[in-house]
Amino acid sequence: MRTAYQEQLSSLTVQLGEMCDLAGQAMEHATQALLQADLALAEQVITDHERITEISVRAEEAAFKLLALQGPVAGDLRAIVSGIQIVADIDRMGALALHVAKIARRRHPQHTLPEEVNGYFAEMGRVAVELSRSAQEVLDTLDPEKAARIREEDDAMDDLHRHLFSVLMDKDWKHGVTAAVDVTLLSRFYERFADHAVEVARRVIFTATGSFPEDQPFVEPR
Amino acid sequence: MRTAYQEQLSSLTVQLGEMCDLAGQAMEHATQALLQADLALAEQVITDHERITEISVRAEEAAFKLLALQGPVAGDLRAIVSGIQIVADIDRMGALALHVAKIARRRHPQHTLPEEVNGYFAEMGRVAVELSRSAQEVLDTLDPEKAARIREEDDAMDDLHRHLFSVLMDKDWKHGVTAAVDVTLLSRFYERFADHAVEVARRVIFTATGSFPEDQPFVEPR
Repeated sequence: MRTAYQEQLSSLTVQLGEMCDLAGQAMEHATQALLQADLALAEQVITDHERITEISVRAEEAAFKLLALQGPVAGDLRAIVSGIQIVADIDRMGALALHVAKIARRRHPQHTLPEEVNGYFAEMGRVAVELSRSAQEVLDTLDPEKAARIREEDDAMDDLHRHLFSVLMDKDWKHGVTAAVDVTLLSRFYERFADHAVEVARRVIFTATGSFPEDQPFVEPR
Repeated sequence: MRTAYQEQLSSLTVQLGEMCDLAGQAMEHATQALLQADLALAEQVITDHERITEISVRAEEAAFKLLALQGPVAGDLRAIVSGIQIVADIDRMGALALHVAKIARRRHPQHTLPEEVNGYFAEMGRVAVELSRSAQEVLDTLDPEKAARIREEDDAMDDLHRHLFSVLMDKDWKHGVTAAVDVTLLSRFYERFADHAVEVARRVIFTATGSFPEDQPFVEPR
């Protein structure tokens, strides 16, 4: 039979998974709002953000209570402390999706993006959502192989981010400075979203195995 | 007489203060490197970054050991958990200073910034360094009034960030897209640096008093 303590510990994991799911959904909708200049959807992402913040507060409280009342050691202690760090990462993923939605809202009824770069953002959105799903899966399964694959998905994001910058900086860029500024910020938001998903997976694997999924330290591309 | 436990706890605080100091120095040097196209100084920021990472690893380990071996409760537990969260914030401040230095290095021997916006970045650099000093002071003194003033300093940063965007998006911007992209990213780095300093102060005050320095939740400007 599971103790109340174990129940609380696994409920923390469930909350983290739920947050990750919501952050992924937020980025999915924000991307759609951006690509289709869909104001209602942008507003929905902005409203829904509160839900992530709520769970994040509750998850942090739950972790804190576990530390205070149960005096956990070894693996459990690592899991709870990582849990607190992971809350911050997923919180940030949600905030980045929110930023994307806010830019889409600010430019409405115009499209934020020049058509030329739509494909990049469709792809960045797809990779971001995939990364949040992978992070969620790693939270559920503690699978180190899945966690290692997250790094590859993140490489795809970094490539997109870099290509996009070369499009921006090409002398043939015809869409002016305002669009360039928006594209710069947006690309940065997607890339940071991906970084946080990678970080979630790394922390989970470190907690579960005591070592990181790969030997290199985490390096942000730009 | 202080116990070994109390020594360890206060040594954690010292480490956080030292990290904050180094992050502030990094941003000071990075700003100088940026404004003066000083390659040697940019390289130094990049090399020095390792030091912040080292202390960050040690501080996190120290906090973890305190949790594992001492089973702290109440205020001490809050201080240690906050300590772990603060490590992540200051780590990020260091990474943002590093990004500024890397952009300065990438554009060398050219100046990254059009002369027109030098004043903005000199001021953003000044405010960023001031914020890191204030955060450090709050870590030392646990002074809630000082922590509340940090918010005002951050407002100054947000104003600079906003003004800079209006300069960028003005139709009279004559410096092309590459400069606009650099300015956009740089401005974002300074603004995020400031946000993390605010967050450090908030966490310290929450730990010390059980409530945040102001009633409003933390809202990122853009």
